[in-house]
Amino acid sequence: MHDGLWFEDLTIGRTFRSGVVVVDPDRVKSFAAEFDPQPFHLDEAAALGSRFGGLVASGWHTAAMTMKLLVTSELRIAGGLIGLGVEEIQWPAPVRPGDVLHAESQVLESRPSRSGAPQGVVVIGTTTLNQDGTVVQKMTAKLLVPRRPVPDVDAASRGSS
Amino acid sequence: MHDGLWFEDLTIGRTFRSGVVVVDPDRVKSFAAEFDPQPFHLDEAAALGSRFGGLVASGWHTAAMTMKLLVTSELRIAGGLIGLGVEEIQWPAPVRPGDVLHAESQVLESRPSRSGAPQGVVVIGTTTLNQDGTVVQKMTAKLLVPRRPVPDVDAASRGSS
Repeated sequence: MHDGLWFEDLTIGRTFRSGVVVVDPDRVKSFAAEFDPQPFHLDEAAALGSRFGGLVASGWHTAAMTMKLLVTSELRIAGGLIGLGVEEIQWPAPVRPGDVLHAESQVLESRPSRSGAPQGVVVIGTTTLNQDGTVVQKMTAKLLVPRRPVPDVDAASRGSS
Repeated sequence: MHDGLWFEDLTIGRTFRSGVVVVDPDRVKSFAAEFDPQPFHLDEAAALGSRFGGLVASGWHTAAMTMKLLVTSELRIAGGLIGLGVEEIQWPAPVRPGDVLHAESQVLESRPSRSGAPQGVVVIGTTTLNQDGTVVQKMTAKLLVPRRPVPDVDAASRGSS
């Protein structure tokens, strides 16, 4: 048996909640060193003089931490969390070292495949919040989700004969 | 003197090109283990049986590698590459271990701040391509860019007097 949610389970308006992640100060810097080497992500002293007034996580680090929250949340999709794309990401407030983040998701749209393939596209809105309830990221993503397999009635009757 | 491009430099249609990054197989797995722990990003054998037919990088890893390409590209903005948000990301083709990626960017829109603040919003389209010229990511991002400071004529004349 597949463990996870099918297209049919992701009804519009359904909500999902994640666990939490603590933003590790060293990881803020090492992520930035590898992927987003800018002073306000790398160095406290330089960040103090920047528009952020202190060290902040790269938006891409926040996006990656949010993905981890989603993959390990209640939103467990049969076949995996396969993103076709992102329609929008906003970072309305900075993420600081030591912040405790969680994600809240809601199904916004749901449409079966036009080609008749056994899958559909589901649009999910995900908000990432810190320990004060401040929204640090808003994202809308399109996922590819398989349909629930139709039971094979013939096989079932063969099995019982 | 500030080293970098100002709002006035980012004229619509201007293009920028990045260097290259080689997608490291071990990093594909370790990034996934930390941020996107799904079988098709973690394990060759499991990935073979997935819809991808082999190991693929997380889309968030591709986005992060693209950010590194941008930060170190010709697109060096005065004050840093500060993203207000992303209007769209698509991952039209998988990124495989060993791929060699580069990014090509173009200025799509440019509007000065309505509030009269010395900055503007610039919309940049960035395409990430592999060694075969296949597009693996398309992204449109909104950046906050400072205006070129107006020279202080009085100070200059004081200096020369």
